[in-house]
Formats: sequence, C-alpha cells, structure tokens
Amino acid sequence: MNIQSLQQFSLNLRNNKMFELFVVAVIILSALLIGAKTYSIPSRVIEVIKYLDWLITFIFLFEIVVRYLAEEQKRLFFTKAWNIFDTLIVVVSLIPIEDSELAFVGRLVRIFRVLRMISIVPELRLLLNSLLKALPQLGYVVLLMFIIFYIYAAIGSTIFYKINPELWGDIAISMLTLFRVMTFEDWTDVMYETMAVYSFSWIYYLTFIFLTAFAFLNMVIGIVVSVLEDEHAKEREEAEALEGKPTIEDLSRQIEELKTLIKAQS
Amino acid sequence: MNIQSLQQFSLNLRNNKMFELFVVAVIILSALLIGAKTYSIPSRVIEVIKYLDWLITFIFLFEIVVRYLAEEQKRLFFTKAWNIFDTLIVVVSLIPIEDSELAFVGRLVRIFRVLRMISIVPELRLLLNSLLKALPQLGYVVLLMFIIFYIYAAIGSTIFYKINPELWGDIAISMLTLFRVMTFEDWTDVMYETMAVYSFSWIYYLTFIFLTAFAFLNMVIGIVVSVLEDEHAKEREEAEALEGKPTIEDLSRQIEELKTLIKAQS
Amino acid sequence: MNIQSLQQFSLNLRNNKMFELFVVAVIILSALLIGAKTYSIPSRVIEVIKYLDWLITFIFLFEIVVRYLAEEQKRLFFTKAWNIFDTLIVVVSLIPIEDSELAFVGRLVRIFRVLRMISIVPELRLLLNSLLKALPQLGYVVLLMFIIFYIYAAIGSTIFYKINPELWGDIAISMLTLFRVMTFEDWTDVMYETMAVYSFSWIYYLTFIFLTAFAFLNMVIGIVVSVLEDEHAKEREEAEALEGKPTIEDLSRQIEELKTLIKAQS
Amino acid sequence: MNIQSLQQFSLNLRNNKMFELFVVAVIILSALLIGAKTYSIPSRVIEVIKYLDWLITFIFLFEIVVRYLAEEQKRLFFTKAWNIFDTLIVVVSLIPIEDSELAFVGRLVRIFRVLRMISIVPELRLLLNSLLKALPQLGYVVLLMFIIFYIYAAIGSTIFYKINPELWGDIAISMLTLFRVMTFEDWTDVMYETMAVYSFSWIYYLTFIFLTAFAFLNMVIGIVVSVLEDEHAKEREEAEALEGKPTIEDLSRQIEELKTLIKAQS
Repeated sequence: MNIQSLQQFSLNLRNNKMFELFVVAVIILSALLIGAKTYSIPSRVIEVIKYLDWLITFIFLFEIVVRYLAEEQKRLFFTKAWNIFDTLIVVVSLIPIEDSELAFVGRLVRIFRVLRMISIVPELRLLLNSLLKALPQLGYVVLLMFIIFYIYAAIGSTIFYKINPELWGDIAISMLTLFRVMTFEDWTDVMYETMAVYSFSWIYYLTFIFLTAFAFLNMVIGIVVSVLEDEHAKEREEAEALEGKPTIEDLSRQIEELKTLIKAQS
Repeated sequence: MNIQSLQQFSLNLRNNKMFELFVVAVIILSALLIGAKTYSIPSRVIEVIKYLDWLITFIFLFEIVVRYLAEEQKRLFFTKAWNIFDTLIVVVSLIPIEDSELAFVGRLVRIFRVLRMISIVPELRLLLNSLLKALPQLGYVVLLMFIIFYIYAAIGSTIFYKINPELWGDIAISMLTLFRVMTFEDWTDVMYETMAVYSFSWIYYLTFIFLTAFAFLNMVIGIVVSVLEDEHAKEREEAEALEGKPTIEDLSRQIEELKTLIKAQS
Repeated sequence: MNIQSLQQFSLNLRNNKMFELFVVAVIILSALLIGAKTYSIPSRVIEVIKYLDWLITFIFLFEIVVRYLAEEQKRLFFTKAWNIFDTLIVVVSLIPIEDSELAFVGRLVRIFRVLRMISIVPELRLLLNSLLKALPQLGYVVLLMFIIFYIYAAIGSTIFYKINPELWGDIAISMLTLFRVMTFEDWTDVMYETMAVYSFSWIYYLTFIFLTAFAFLNMVIGIVVSVLEDEHAKEREEAEALEGKPTIEDLSRQIEELKTLIKAQS
Repeated sequence: MNIQSLQQFSLNLRNNKMFELFVVAVIILSALLIGAKTYSIPSRVIEVIKYLDWLITFIFLFEIVVRYLAEEQKRLFFTKAWNIFDTLIVVVSLIPIEDSELAFVGRLVRIFRVLRMISIVPELRLLLNSLLKALPQLGYVVLLMFIIFYIYAAIGSTIFYKINPELWGDIAISMLTLFRVMTFEDWTDVMYETMAVYSFSWIYYLTFIFLTAFAFLNMVIGIVVSVLEDEHAKEREEAEALEGKPTIEDLSRQIEELKTLIKAQS
C-alpha cells in the first residue's frame, strides 16, 4: 500500500458518516466513564474502566492519525486550534503516570476529552465560534465594569478593612465580595455589617448596584442591537443577491434610455 | 335515532359555546376540589367531595364520547395528542382503587385533570404549541450548556469530593450543586467552603458563572431574533398579499412597454 | 359673580401652570409629612403636622371643586377613574376619626394621597396608561403560569405535606413556597429538606423552574415584540403622512400618463 | 522659546500617540499602587510607594499643563467636565496632608485617579456619554418606581413597625428593606416574620414584587426600543447620505422631464 492510497483511505474514512458517529459514541462512553469514576465502585469495575480508558485513548490516537493523513497539506494541520487541542489531549493521555501528583493531572486531561464533542460536532463548533465572535464587542464595557469594580474595591478595603478582614482584607478579596453583592447573594448581610459601624454605607452598596446593573444592561442591549444589525445586513445582502429583480437604479437607467430614444426621434 | 343523527347531535353539542363553557366550569370545579382536599376538612365534606369527584369523572367521560362521536374520521381521533391525554385521564379516573399505594396515583391523575384546561381553551393550546415550537431552536445551546455542566461537575467532584461529599459526592450531585451556583442561591457559601482548602477555587466558580451566563444570554437573544424574524417574514407575506399596489418590477415593465411604443412610432 | 364666570374662573385656574405646580408642591409636602410621621418626633411637631394635614386636605378639596367647576359637562366628571379616586381620597380625609381602629384607615388614606402625584402629572398618567395597556396582552400567559403553579402546588402539598407543613401545608401556602422557589430565594433549603425523604424530588423543582422560567421568558419576548410592532405601525403611519413625497404608485400613474401622451401623438 | 512655539510643542505632545500610551501606563501604575496599599507590605516598600506616588502626581500635573497649553482657547478649557475633574484630582493630590483625618480624604482622591482612565481613553469616554444619554429617558419611570417604593415603605413602617423596628423602623429603613425584597435577597425571611403576626401580609410583598418587576421590565423595554429607534434613524440618514443612488423622487422628476420632451415634440 503506497502513501497516496493511504491518504485516500484516510480521507474516505474521515468523511464517512458512520466513522464520525462511532467517534461521537466513543466520546460519550469516555464521558460516562468519567462520571462513573466519581461514584464508589467495586475494584473489579475499576479494572474494567482502566482497560476501557486505554482503548478510548488508542481510538482517539487512531482518529487523530487518520485526520492527519487525510489532510492534504500536512503543514496546515497544526494551524487549526481544534487539531492542536485534540493532539495535546491524546498525547498527555498516552504518558504512563505513576506519580500520584501527576495522576491528578491525568484525570483532569481525561475530563477535558469531553470537549472533543465540540471539536467533532460541526453545529457545536459553529455555536462556539459565534459566541467567541460576540466577545470583542464587549471589550470596552467589560473594561468599564472592571474600573468600577476596582475603584469600589479600593474604597471598600480602605474603609471596611477593620470591620471584616475576611470580606474586605485586600483589593482582590474586596472585588470577590463586590461580585457577590452584584449577584445579590446575601448582600444585605454584608451591608448590615458595615452599616452597624458606618450608618451611611448603604450609599456605597446602592450606587454600586445601580452602576453595575446599568452597565450590564447596556452590555446586553449592545449585543442584542449588534446581533439584529448583523441579521439586517444579511437580509440586505440576500435582497441584493436576487439579481433578477430590478432596483430603482435600473429604473433610472431605463428612463434615461427612453429620453435618448425620444430625442433621437425628433 | 340512527348513527348519522347521533353524530350530527354530537357535532352540534361539541361546537356549542355553552357546552364548552360548561366543561370549563366543571374543570374549574375539579381544580377547586383538588385544592380543597389539601386543607383539613370535616369528614362530611369529604363525602360530598367524593360524590362530586365521580360526577366530574362521568361528565368528562360524556364529553370525550361526544367528541369521539363528533369526529368524522374515527381513526384520526387518537392521532391527536390531546385526545389521547384526555382519554387516559378519564380512563384512569374510572378505575376503582382500594389499594393505598395506587390511591396515591389516583390522586395525582385527578391533579392532572387541571391540564384539561389547556386542551379545551384554544388560546392556551395555541400558546403551548408556540412554546413547544421554540424548544428545538434551543437544542444545541442546551447541549453546549450540558457539556459545560458535565465538565465542571467532573472537575468539582474530583477536586472537592473530600471537602463536602454532600455537595460534591458524585457527578450527579455536583451538577445539582452547580445548578444551584448558577441560580446564585447561597453560592458564596459553597465557594467559601472550598476556598478554605484551595484558595484559588474562586476561579472555578467565576469562570463557570461567566460561561453559563454568557451561554444563557446567547440563548435568549437567539430566541428573540428568531421570533422577530418570524414577525418580519409574516409582514413581508402580508405586504406581498396586497397585490393591488404596484412594485418596482411593474414599473420596469411599464417603461419597457413605453420603449416599444416609441420605437413603433419612429 | 354668576355661574358662567365662575366656570371660566375655574377653567383658567385649572389650566394655570403655577396652580398645577402649587398642587404638586402640596402633594410633595403631604408625602414628606407621611414620611416624618414614621420617625419618633416631639409632640409639638406632631401638633404642627396635624394642622398641616388639615390644611392639605382643604387645599385638595378646593382643587377638586375647581376641577369639577371647570368641567363643562358635569356628568362626565365622575366617569374618569382619576377624578373618582381623587374625590374618594379627599372625602375620606375629611371624616373626623376618633376611633383608633378607623384612625388606622385614616392614616392609610393619607398615604394613598401620594398617588395623586400620578393623577396630576400628565407624563406619569400616560406612563401608567401604557403599563396598563400592556397587561391584557399577558392574560393567557399569566393563566398558563397560574395553571403550572396550581398543579405543582397540588402535587407538592400531596407529597411533601408531612415533611414540612409550614411550607406545604395546603395548596395556598404551597403556591407561596413555589413563588419563593421561582425567585430562587433559598430554594435549595426547600429542596434539600424534601430530598432527604424523597431523593428524586429534585426533578420536581428543576422541571418547575424550567417551566416557569421558560413561560416567563416567552411573556417578556411577547411584550417586546408587540411594543416593537406598535412602533413599526407608528412609523408606517408617519411615512404615509408625508404626502409630499411620491410613492411607487405615483410613478406608475405618471408613466401611464406618458403612454397616453405618446399614443395621442402617433 | 516663545509662547506660540510652546503651544505648538504642547499640541504635538498631546496628540502624540506615545505620550497618550505613557499616561495610560502611569494611570495603570497608579491603580496598581492603590491595590498594593491594601495588602500588608513591608515598610521599605511603603517608602518606595510614597515616592512613586509623588512621581505620578507630578506626571499628572505635567500632563494637565500640557493639555492646558495645547488648548487654543484657554477659556474653553474649564468648560469641559473632564478637564475640571482632572485638575481637581491633581490639585488635591498636591496638598501635603499631615492630619490623619484628611489623610483619609487624600487616599480616596488617589483612588479616584483611576477614573482618569475614562477621561484619557476616547472609547471609554464615548461609552460613558452614551450611558449618561440613556438616563433622562428613564426619568419618569424612575419617578414612578420611587412613588411605589415610598407608598409601600409608608404602609410598611405603619403596619410592621412593632414587628421588627430594625427593618421597618422609619420610612428610610423601610425603603432599604423594600429594595432588599426587590432583589429577592432573603425576602421570605422578611415576609414570614410579618406573616406570623398578619397572616395576609404576603399580599403586601407579592403586589410590591409584581409592581416593581413590571415597572422595571417596562423600563428595560423602553431603553431597548429607543436604542433600536436611534439605530434605525442612523440607518436612514446613511441611506440618504448615499447621494449617488437615485430615489423615487429623482425618478418622478425624470419622468416629468420625459413628458415635457414629448410635449415639445408634438
């Protein structure tokens, strides 16, 4: 079997719908094993899981190799983020780990294998891409919210430090406390504690809640508007794509032609 | 009375507005009885409720029979989900139950009779249909959220297992805990507990909250956009239905006719 | 001074901007007095507040009389909800109350005088009207949510009655508990309590949360869409009102005229 | 160096991208110092921070002077809110403070220096302006919500005063309690407490929650609609700005010209 026929075979296998479904099934099995391991199970079952684990790793290895061989331009294979992610997961799974410290890392890597679901199902990959595309639009609003958080945390850890160091000990822990206030999680407990010392500290909390809620609201509206605009732009493009239909410009041209016709007559 | 006139009589009765209102009234009465039974009431009233219960069951049976007889094509009757549901409810209500275990099931069936309200009021049926129609659109986002939940639950039950087995005991209970965190319900209590052991575990919670909140936001926006698009599509159809009004295409045709006229002249 | 000049005088006074501002100021004063009474204040100030209270009542009475006299068709005066409300508030304020039981009612009536702010500021009245107009659109969704609540409350008080009668005692208290669950207020406490007995009761809570959240989401989207449609309709009307600008129909007519001209030539 | 060349030099410096980045870096350093001060740090580092603090103050002073000199019309400099804010921050930072009371104010002023980030990054300034522009639209809804809060707080502090003075002591504290109820923060604890005395007080809480939630919903929808309208208006302007493309009016004019042409012929 020469190299070219190997590539052809790999390409056929990769594009085979049954093969894709088989890999999805293996990923689901891998996810179920991860779930099973969190229950207290008899040692014999653990043994079985171990063997299944190695089987899954080798199937994943086989699938990566197939995908690599199927790729026409080998150089481009590792320029795709998902290919790098898949290869990394498989490589780390292959390393035999004895050390208990590293065994922990090995378990985490096995958990991240579930993410392969996203790399293999095109609809999920598309969805994730669209989510990531919405992120940069939020850039400056997130920066603004961070500034609000930072200033309030600095004020909070300056004034409330002595009242409760666990909540206002330093600027990092104060930001965590403020995030808690933003989610309304027992925020009155935090407030009543400081109000016992500074009775006007409710101003601090209420202004913070209004500022962040307002900024958050604007963020959401910003996304909605930009999403709707994208939709409108798409509609317009579609409308323009219908070349059969005449536009106002076409009409204008037609009338001009008429004019020249009439002028030629006279 | 022959079969045909029986069907005609059933059809008239089924389409009778007064009969529909009467059935709605019986359903409301049935709902009130269910509510009444949750209060501690004197045994004499319980007796009355029992008789009313049977009366309601027979009225429902009568109504189903009328609807069945009114149906022109008897075969199609049981292809409608609501007809099957109504019949099931009535049939189970008719079984005389002595066993206390089954008596419990009988009570539950009586509760579900309130759902008949939806099957009988057309506006509610329409509303439910539109809600159900929105569900498949959410398919992949729900799958993505489930993957996020599953991965975080696997990590959580691996790392936090020893800290609090009641919250992180296995992957199922961890997912419930994460749902709790997503609803912001005492989520800081959960976090502070694990932060006492792993001081950087706030990263786990914050990334989880941001990921799920962001995915949820996208889900909502997705529904809003698709609903608005449906509205636009409806508007466009309505606009096209107004055939009397000329379009740009009509204008183009008119001008072309002018041209041929002028050409014919010269 | 005859009746007609009295009406003219009242009409002038009612439409006087300064008089309106004066009444607004009196309402604000009345609101401040209500707030002041909730603090522990020296008896001398209480005395002053009492006199101010009577003064305010008489100013309100005067204003109502002016509005009544200004009305051209006296019969229509009491067909407006706000006029009835204002008159009722003033009449009840006028009744001298000695009894401590009724004194309480008197205090409540004085609180509702703040609502006169809405009846007198046109923008607020408009806003309230638009809020009220949005209500009927919600009708069937609210009914659907009530049915969901009722069924879950009936199931809850049947199954969980013995676990905690304070939360699941009867159908009314169960609905209150479910509303609490819907607002995510310590809902896990409620759930953990029942899960200790029925370990699968999380299904009950999660399905309830999804159903109500989904119905609520649909309600909100419904309002947004209908509001946007109203806006579109308004825009279209405005566009049509701009009669100066030619439409496609006008063009069509112009071209037809051209045709007849050319035909006449030949 | 004469004054004119000084202004030119300032102008060049102010518009220099590198200078702007340098000032941003200094602001970030200033923010980091503020954060560092909330941790317990060795006295030697505190000394270093002190010197860095003075350095930052002088860089800010230099930057303000540059901006002032670069301004062509010196009078207009202090009409811009951000210039006044920047100058104030720098001037207060320059005052040497010994008194411990005022030292506290000095620390707060240093915290507000982080806000200079908004004054220097144009995108953030733009964002803040758009947020502020959305505020007046909310005016009357906020007033309506305040009236609802005021009336409920007045009723609450009248009826529930004796049950828990800490929550319902006076109208101000009652409004804070109601804000807590609105954020669903342990609102059932507040309710159960009053329900123990007045069993029907759930009506008070539920009507309050519905009223405020409904008003809030309307507020959000109001903003969304107005934002979308702004977008539509912008689009229309853009469409009109594309002068190259013919409009229906142009077509109408062209046809009119045709008519005169034809009439001239005959």
